[in-house]
Amino acid sequence: MTTSTRAIGAHGPGRPLEPLEITRRELRNDDIQIAIQFAGVCHSDIHTMNGDWGERQWPLAPGHEIVGIVSAVGSSVTAFTVGDRVGVGCFVNSCGECDPCSQGEISYCERGAVGTYGDVDRFSDGEYTQGGYSRSIVVRESFVLRIPDGLDPAGAAPLLCAGITTYSPLRHWNVGPGSRVAVVGMGGLGHVGVKIALAMGAEVTVFSHSDRKRDDALAYGAKDLIATRDGLPRELRKHFDFILNTVSADIDINAYLGLLRFDGTLVQLGLPGEPMKIRAGSVVNRRGSLAGSLVGGIRETQEMLDFCGEHGITADIELISADRINEAYERTVAADVRYRFVIDASTI
Amino acid sequence: MTTSTRAIGAHGPGRPLEPLEITRRELRNDDIQIAIQFAGVCHSDIHTMNGDWGERQWPLAPGHEIVGIVSAVGSSVTAFTVGDRVGVGCFVNSCGECDPCSQGEISYCERGAVGTYGDVDRFSDGEYTQGGYSRSIVVRESFVLRIPDGLDPAGAAPLLCAGITTYSPLRHWNVGPGSRVAVVGMGGLGHVGVKIALAMGAEVTVFSHSDRKRDDALAYGAKDLIATRDGLPRELRKHFDFILNTVSADIDINAYLGLLRFDGTLVQLGLPGEPMKIRAGSVVNRRGSLAGSLVGGIRETQEMLDFCGEHGITADIELISADRINEAYERTVAADVRYRFVIDASTI
Repeated sequence: MTTSTRAIGAHGPGRPLEPLEITRRELRNDDIQIAIQFAGVCHSDIHTMNGDWGERQWPLAPGHEIVGIVSAVGSSVTAFTVGDRVGVGCFVNSCGECDPCSQGEISYCERGAVGTYGDVDRFSDGEYTQGGYSRSIVVRESFVLRIPDGLDPAGAAPLLCAGITTYSPLRHWNVGPGSRVAVVGMGGLGHVGVKIALAMGAEVTVFSHSDRKRDDALAYGAKDLIATRDGLPRELRKHFDFILNTVSADIDINAYLGLLRFDGTLVQLGLPGEPMKIRAGSVVNRRGSLAGSLVGGIRETQEMLDFCGEHGITADIELISADRINEAYERTVAADVRYRFVIDASTI
Repeated sequence: MTTSTRAIGAHGPGRPLEPLEITRRELRNDDIQIAIQFAGVCHSDIHTMNGDWGERQWPLAPGHEIVGIVSAVGSSVTAFTVGDRVGVGCFVNSCGECDPCSQGEISYCERGAVGTYGDVDRFSDGEYTQGGYSRSIVVRESFVLRIPDGLDPAGAAPLLCAGITTYSPLRHWNVGPGSRVAVVGMGGLGHVGVKIALAMGAEVTVFSHSDRKRDDALAYGAKDLIATRDGLPRELRKHFDFILNTVSADIDINAYLGLLRFDGTLVQLGLPGEPMKIRAGSVVNRRGSLAGSLVGGIRETQEMLDFCGEHGITADIELISADRINEAYERTVAADVRYRFVIDASTI
């Protein structure tokens, strides 16, 4: 028994997105059915739909920045009731048994966490997952997040991916008052990372290709925005404790490592197509680290949402109707959005 | 007023080493004069003497793994007295004021710690430093280490560089009981690193080009030695918490990063000539880190020596007379030594 729901997605890699009917499973005991209100448009949706990240089953509806209202709950669900405002992020299942899972770090599941869309739920009935560009979704209770009251729900949607992807490393590497943080790239991830790092008490400097976004960075509270097309300023060498690189394109990583202080860490979030060419001296000479990070687990995502609730942090968004999704993809690829498109799911 | 002392060194880059007379400064108030007994032969001595690491003043006597007996002390010295067994490592001065120096991490001095040989003492009178392949040396009290009783002094000499270079990252990244450690390369550094990691309580696996050193590794207490010319075993993927790479040649770093567990760290000690080509996924997918490390500071070097004293750890050495130094260099380059040459300074 499945139910049908409206969605937007594509019939093949690189094809335009269009209205679809997809199916959702019947509610299990531990499932929650969510009436979706908002779905953020993540750059990784575009990669997946272009077929850049491996083969998928089609038609496919993407979307893993999901906010909505609980519309039904399974018989054993206790943490949520109908009417609660909730969210769903990048994963909807994991093995639950490996080392990372047992630490709550489900995104590093050694058997592979199940993506919210375009993935096989290998820990359940093998269902092929369909994402949040739709009117409703059914998700295991333990993968559902609570959206704090007082946060604009549309602006909160991108927190489910962009928020936790930046919060998790900032928290893991102990950013706080006194930390000097650089955020490289101020797009969907970067602009949320700037807000979160500032709320954690850090001094934040933004590195952006041009100075077009300087006013926004300063309005958030950043100390400065450095336009990198002119090169990296010598006076910032050995300045930063922590550098968050949100840029997936090739950048001069050794030059950024040179901005780290003793014991500093540069965290890579994106996956450039080419290997990064790291000079050993860039890390050896300062006991520096080049690290990587994925989104955080469910417990940490809830912590991040609560933190954003306390500090009034949401993404800056451009709300669109479903019929503008292909235009939104083009503009996202062109970096022509401040800073995240969010789909109004009532228009799907 | 300086005094002259016998040494072995070279008159130019790439020239054979031969007997020299060098000068040592008159004792200042905070200086210690050491009658050198033993001096280890570090691969970096060979690089420096070949001119691989920049220009030097000649003639130059290398050596920064020094053990001897205090033969005189300056008027304000209180921590050492004549007759104490002491050591000197890689550095003999630093600015004392920068962030790393104020944390005791003098090797990361932001103005550049002063090397024990072939360097200008830019924080004192600009003296050009001469190393430990000699009969005596004069060093500031605060850069002198105490050698624990009970350690063979010849075998202890390599601890001053090889020992602290491996101890420092093992300690910094919290290796201890339960840790799964890989040591890549079992030469001068690697064999000491294996002993120290085992004494810290870790499970240690050695990665070596061939299985020639298997018996030694197992005798130290290692769990296994993997001969890497056959490739890395798949069953060790995601096995290690910590990988210590003591190899300076290019190795397949991504393959080793693949052996790290969630939150694991690979520490690079050597400086390969070419940049390391790191696939971002190698770190992103496991929240892994590629880090680098130099020798530890003075406080930590003393801690390491005391630790080695408690655990009876010295380097396995081949003691040579001074007239065999050029042969020793050739054999070190050919990796034909188990595991460190040490010069008997009485033969200089």
